[in-house]
Amino acid sequence: MANFQKLTPRSEDYSKWYNELVVKADLAEQSAVRGCMVIKPYGYAIWETIQQELDRRFKQQGVKNAYFPLLIPKSFLSREAEHVEGFAKECAVVTHHRLMNDPNGKGVVVDPNARLEEELIIRPTSETIIWSTYKNWISSYRDLPILCNQWCNVMRWEMRTRLFLRTAEFLWQEGHTAHATKEEAEEFAQRMLNVYADFAENVMAIPVIKGVKSPNERFAGALNTYCIEAMMQDGKALQAGTSHFLGQNFAKSFDVQFLSKENKYEYVWATSWGVSTRLMGALIMTHSDDNGLVLPPALAPIQVVIVPIFKKQEDLDVLMTRIQPLADKLATMGIRVKVDTSEKATPGFKFADYELKGVPVRLAMGGRDFENNTIEIARRDTLTKETISLDGIEEKIKALLDEIQQNCHRKALDYRIANTRECNSYEEFKEEIKKGGFLLCHWDGTPETEELIKNETKATIRCIPMEALPGYKEEPGVCMVTGKPSAKRVVFAIAY
Amino acid sequence: MANFQKLTPRSEDYSKWYNELVVKADLAEQSAVRGCMVIKPYGYAIWETIQQELDRRFKQQGVKNAYFPLLIPKSFLSREAEHVEGFAKECAVVTHHRLMNDPNGKGVVVDPNARLEEELIIRPTSETIIWSTYKNWISSYRDLPILCNQWCNVMRWEMRTRLFLRTAEFLWQEGHTAHATKEEAEEFAQRMLNVYADFAENVMAIPVIKGVKSPNERFAGALNTYCIEAMMQDGKALQAGTSHFLGQNFAKSFDVQFLSKENKYEYVWATSWGVSTRLMGALIMTHSDDNGLVLPPALAPIQVVIVPIFKKQEDLDVLMTRIQPLADKLATMGIRVKVDTSEKATPGFKFADYELKGVPVRLAMGGRDFENNTIEIARRDTLTKETISLDGIEEKIKALLDEIQQNCHRKALDYRIANTRECNSYEEFKEEIKKGGFLLCHWDGTPETEELIKNETKATIRCIPMEALPGYKEEPGVCMVTGKPSAKRVVFAIAY
Repeated sequence: MANFQKLTPRSEDYSKWYNELVVKADLAEQSAVRGCMVIKPYGYAIWETIQQELDRRFKQQGVKNAYFPLLIPKSFLSREAEHVEGFAKECAVVTHHRLMNDPNGKGVVVDPNARLEEELIIRPTSETIIWSTYKNWISSYRDLPILCNQWCNVMRWEMRTRLFLRTAEFLWQEGHTAHATKEEAEEFAQRMLNVYADFAENVMAIPVIKGVKSPNERFAGALNTYCIEAMMQDGKALQAGTSHFLGQNFAKSFDVQFLSKENKYEYVWATSWGVSTRLMGALIMTHSDDNGLVLPPALAPIQVVIVPIFKKQEDLDVLMTRIQPLADKLATMGIRVKVDTSEKATPGFKFADYELKGVPVRLAMGGRDFENNTIEIARRDTLTKETISLDGIEEKIKALLDEIQQNCHRKALDYRIANTRECNSYEEFKEEIKKGGFLLCHWDGTPETEELIKNETKATIRCIPMEALPGYKEEPGVCMVTGKPSAKRVVFAIAY
Repeated sequence: MANFQKLTPRSEDYSKWYNELVVKADLAEQSAVRGCMVIKPYGYAIWETIQQELDRRFKQQGVKNAYFPLLIPKSFLSREAEHVEGFAKECAVVTHHRLMNDPNGKGVVVDPNARLEEELIIRPTSETIIWSTYKNWISSYRDLPILCNQWCNVMRWEMRTRLFLRTAEFLWQEGHTAHATKEEAEEFAQRMLNVYADFAENVMAIPVIKGVKSPNERFAGALNTYCIEAMMQDGKALQAGTSHFLGQNFAKSFDVQFLSKENKYEYVWATSWGVSTRLMGALIMTHSDDNGLVLPPALAPIQVVIVPIFKKQEDLDVLMTRIQPLADKLATMGIRVKVDTSEKATPGFKFADYELKGVPVRLAMGGRDFENNTIEIARRDTLTKETISLDGIEEKIKALLDEIQQNCHRKALDYRIANTRECNSYEEFKEEIKKGGFLLCHWDGTPETEELIKNETKATIRCIPMEALPGYKEEPGVCMVTGKPSAKRVVFAIAY
């Protein structure tokens, strides 16, 4: 049962609002294992839709799913020097393979005789185990490209965790491709970024900026990291997906060569790309309000809920003679519809619950509506409602769902535009960044300057945009800190 | 590229045939981590179809997916006494959460300062972590039933592993339900068994016997284990799915009580049920032959492959004027079709490869076929081929796929019937069991007799059938070992 103590308003404490909402809307909760979450059925239903939509898009690009081991030999992690720096520190280490009854009492203890010869690491990401596998799959250019993806769990031992945003265990997909040429690999990494951007904009209704990461923010072992960056309602940035051009780094570390058309041995070129359950956090923080979740219809487990208002079973029977055919019709149109005839809760309780859960369209029908051949229709995104005729209502609902989807995107884009501005002096920057949002600034391209800004303001370069933001032009200038030349403005923000 | 060294014939070494086939048909392979497999894209595509078909059936029963943590606190495993006996011994134990650079050289070592206070176990199954979670979800009868499932990886540290059949890590689904009454839980456990049986028979084309496990073979912590048992081509039994009635054992261990309609606190009743990637082994060993995989069309990633026979590009262009429309038509009919125009391989090579991969229907068209408006059609299950007219071929193909699906099931059922017989004396049993197959025998119902038979013959009671096998009657008799009374015959076999 939902808890109807009101949510802390966003304006009061955004972080608290988020934490409460995730739990109250039945999306996820902390588990008995520190930093690991339980994804509850309602939250998981949203994740399943995310998976389906992405999986279909991956397959359109010729990608096939596969499965690689959860555990990685410790020695694999140190093969790629930069990779180990970025990842190997905080991770779950398996050292033993057996328990035994405690000789001194109740319960079980680790059997000291069952120590592994080499420790195994629960995958923080799978480049190493996958490239050690690809070595056996690739001998000639005929074996390329290999386009594999896996949906799985990964683990990074985070010290401070937040549901969906940063958890020790999370779910994700990781694509790993192998190519004969540099150009093909780079093109593929960018193509997958476009797949992510299309998905974010059109399914999640989240406007994103496509860009390239600065060297400091690159994935450990990558030559280039492409990303999509979104702005949350508190003005902070959230990285919603990354696609890496890995060059020949992993092929060299795992000695993966192929015989080219020209009969020469060459190292294979690689990409990897992933999105995770972190997207759930982005979804919540982009659209929701002080009343609860707001879900874009494309991801709503229930798109339309119909609540009959009745006191006696006979009244319900009468109402259902109109409600059931309507629900059936909506279902045949591919709309996810639920009729809530439960007597466990009052209509008011139900309304509040579906509002909290972000159901996009709510219909309610009582005796008077029945007599008048009308129904009350309420929109979650605008919190408006009206009473309309039942004639032709199915098409109106379909159009309304499209309109809500568009509106979610438009609101988020308006917010981002209103909170994005250029900034030309570092003094101004230090003040402006406190207000949140994206700051478009010139930067001299050096890690030192980036580091300085980060240390002094906590702001990082979210990305070097691949194209000018709407309303802005790409122009050269001078770095706001050092005055050195800059080819174009980059996006600074405080990030999740 | 497939390797066309011939498979070891089944009659020569069934086990070797299986191991070779799994690898050569690109289903799976051993990984760099002992006992853990890589599921290759072709094998994973079959698993994905298995998942979709099962998931749809689960949802029809009102089951919802969720996700629970990978890691389980060690102390949880010892809460349910029988459960720990059955599971806790061989498992992967996480003891540390950080690596560090080796102070004495290259690479990384486990940071001794990052020892966990309590060791964590990679889930061998999730009853304990789930029931510790359900405690927070359940307070009243209104919260029941809870019908959750998760698709995930699990780990059991097996010493002797075989691809799909017994691996340290494997993929599965595990359903965990919570009910207000004993009757409802028992009914639900049986209902899920029926879901599994329906899926095995109608999708996998594997005939199964529905039964109850003897106490010795029960799941650790269950009051009753229902199962479906299949016979492989070597006469050995394979347990293809189990559904457990757990009584109140886990509710008591984790103190999960609810307030009943009668306003009394009662312990919750539980079930759990699962199938795993082991089903892939059952699929292979039920239908395949010495030429490679045989896949029932319902699970074939490619149901129909069309191979144009050509030398020059112009010839291919002409052939494609008929082949492409045919492929498009089949696709619109929902048939998974592939046209192989690759020039990397000869038609003969392609034919052998699709045979190895178990593609149910293969079509081939050359110049003469084109002139005659015909096409060659080959069936994988019977290895027969004929040349038929293109007129109305789509409907013929659709009917043929149905016929192949039926035929796979019929052949498997015929084999099982031919290798099932009654056996009335233990002396006879000891000889007969060497020949393999299912032996229907009277048993006195005691663990001692079961244990004796197992020790002397390796045969176990696969199940106590829920209904008489086709062609047999349910009759009382006397135990073949002790002469004590027996209510009905049970199924004995050597099992995987």
